[in-house]
Amino acid sequence: MASAIAPEPAHRFVPIDDPDDPRIAVFRDIRERDLTGRNGFIAEGTVVLDQLALSRRFRPTALLVLQNRLAGLAGRLAKLPHDCPVYVAGRDIVDAVAGFPMHRGVLAHGEDTGGATTREAAISAAFAQGAPILAAIGIANHDNIGALFRNARAFGVGGLLLDETSCHPLYRKALRVSVGTVLTQGWHRGGTAGEILAAVIAAGYRPIALTPGGTMRIEDLGGGRPCALFVGAEGTGLPAELLERMDGLRIAMDPSVDSLNVATSAAIVLSRLYASR
Amino acid sequence: MASAIAPEPAHRFVPIDDPDDPRIAVFRDIRERDLTGRNGFIAEGTVVLDQLALSRRFRPTALLVLQNRLAGLAGRLAKLPHDCPVYVAGRDIVDAVAGFPMHRGVLAHGEDTGGATTREAAISAAFAQGAPILAAIGIANHDNIGALFRNARAFGVGGLLLDETSCHPLYRKALRVSVGTVLTQGWHRGGTAGEILAAVIAAGYRPIALTPGGTMRIEDLGGGRPCALFVGAEGTGLPAELLERMDGLRIAMDPSVDSLNVATSAAIVLSRLYASR
Repeated sequence: MASAIAPEPAHRFVPIDDPDDPRIAVFRDIRERDLTGRNGFIAEGTVVLDQLALSRRFRPTALLVLQNRLAGLAGRLAKLPHDCPVYVAGRDIVDAVAGFPMHRGVLAHGEDTGGATTREAAISAAFAQGAPILAAIGIANHDNIGALFRNARAFGVGGLLLDETSCHPLYRKALRVSVGTVLTQGWHRGGTAGEILAAVIAAGYRPIALTPGGTMRIEDLGGGRPCALFVGAEGTGLPAELLERMDGLRIAMDPSVDSLNVATSAAIVLSRLYASR
Repeated sequence: MASAIAPEPAHRFVPIDDPDDPRIAVFRDIRERDLTGRNGFIAEGTVVLDQLALSRRFRPTALLVLQNRLAGLAGRLAKLPHDCPVYVAGRDIVDAVAGFPMHRGVLAHGEDTGGATTREAAISAAFAQGAPILAAIGIANHDNIGALFRNARAFGVGGLLLDETSCHPLYRKALRVSVGTVLTQGWHRGGTAGEILAAVIAAGYRPIALTPGGTMRIEDLGGGRPCALFVGAEGTGLPAELLERMDGLRIAMDPSVDSLNVATSAAIVLSRLYASR
């Protein structure tokens, strides 16, 4: 019997029983593909999905959910836009499509809604909060990019600036390691390290380079203008021409060790900045 | 013409042209196998190899080197025991044996020389230096175990204690992420968290739990007895019955974030302890 009251619009749950079904083509072979261009991105697991639900810049276009996880995911799915189809399939189908055993129960394909933040907008939003900036130069490792985002969120960074040689934070693995914060944090990727430096100085930030050759100590941080912390790739570090143009900070460590992981180093400095705010 | 002077004993360089050669069986399918039992461990790449050369507890039993890397590795190989055979093969052979593309040019199979440190010996050695202890409880992720070792070395930890439920630090990936420090750092794995706690207290350490529910702040550290810092698995954290028995320390962070990576958290606290020593 039809109800006289219009029901809440519900998700379209679509059973899938063929791995070659074209409706789930965006989830195919996601281990190998780079989806960070025009084709959107893949979010894996509930933690990233929760950030996608909170995001103002990104939205899901389709979900692929394991049949036996559907009930447990109901509360989360309710927070996502109801016009996003939810494809439901058994483990054999999902693993065959994704190209690897998919333990997390849910995949989302997402896209940028077109409101990509400019570098200047990301900087101004951070400055308005008195929050630090984290600038990542030449970071080619997806885990490190993801961990930089996770640590930046933990310690109140207002915006992340990635140069054009850093890898894209919407890569599946970077997104997962970031615990989804790439979707809810202000950031901009593009341009050169020199352009990023000029922009943060113009906005009123004090640039500081994290480098083993620095003379500033972590205890010298705090007070004054908000900081823009620059970090470079493990191994090569920040380019010399950039280091000449700002103060360098060194984390005291055992002389037998030449460096720490870049995201760990950033976390140590950012935690100190956070505590001093 | 034979020289009248006996030459330096040199490495036995052994060319290999068959992936099924039994002499390189220890390198077979290393991606999948757990080699941390009686069968020794696999060290990958030059950074880990350097630590193996420095190690007093571990030694290489065999090396497998890519033919085209041999010349570049000569200096490093000279630091390794000369009775260790060096098998040399082309890329096809090495990749077929290892079971994945082997980018690092060199694999070593190593073994414990039998001098496995007892928990008490590891603790006394650390205490004699006034160095902190890091105790890892229930850490099941190889990357995290490796990163804990790397960070411990950077900040002068005297010894690492791993409970029996933590994964083994000689797993290939843990060893690699540790940048080989597992081979040169004092550590012991085994027993329960409660046994580890009793042992550090008996030795004169002040146990401190790193936990989001802690009331100590990082600024409260320093002075007094050396610390034994306890860290637990991401997600579940340290067991409640352990937390009741020591002070808890909380790293100040943004309220929207529930936790940091365990090795990153440890690094933040250990860097502060290092700076205050």
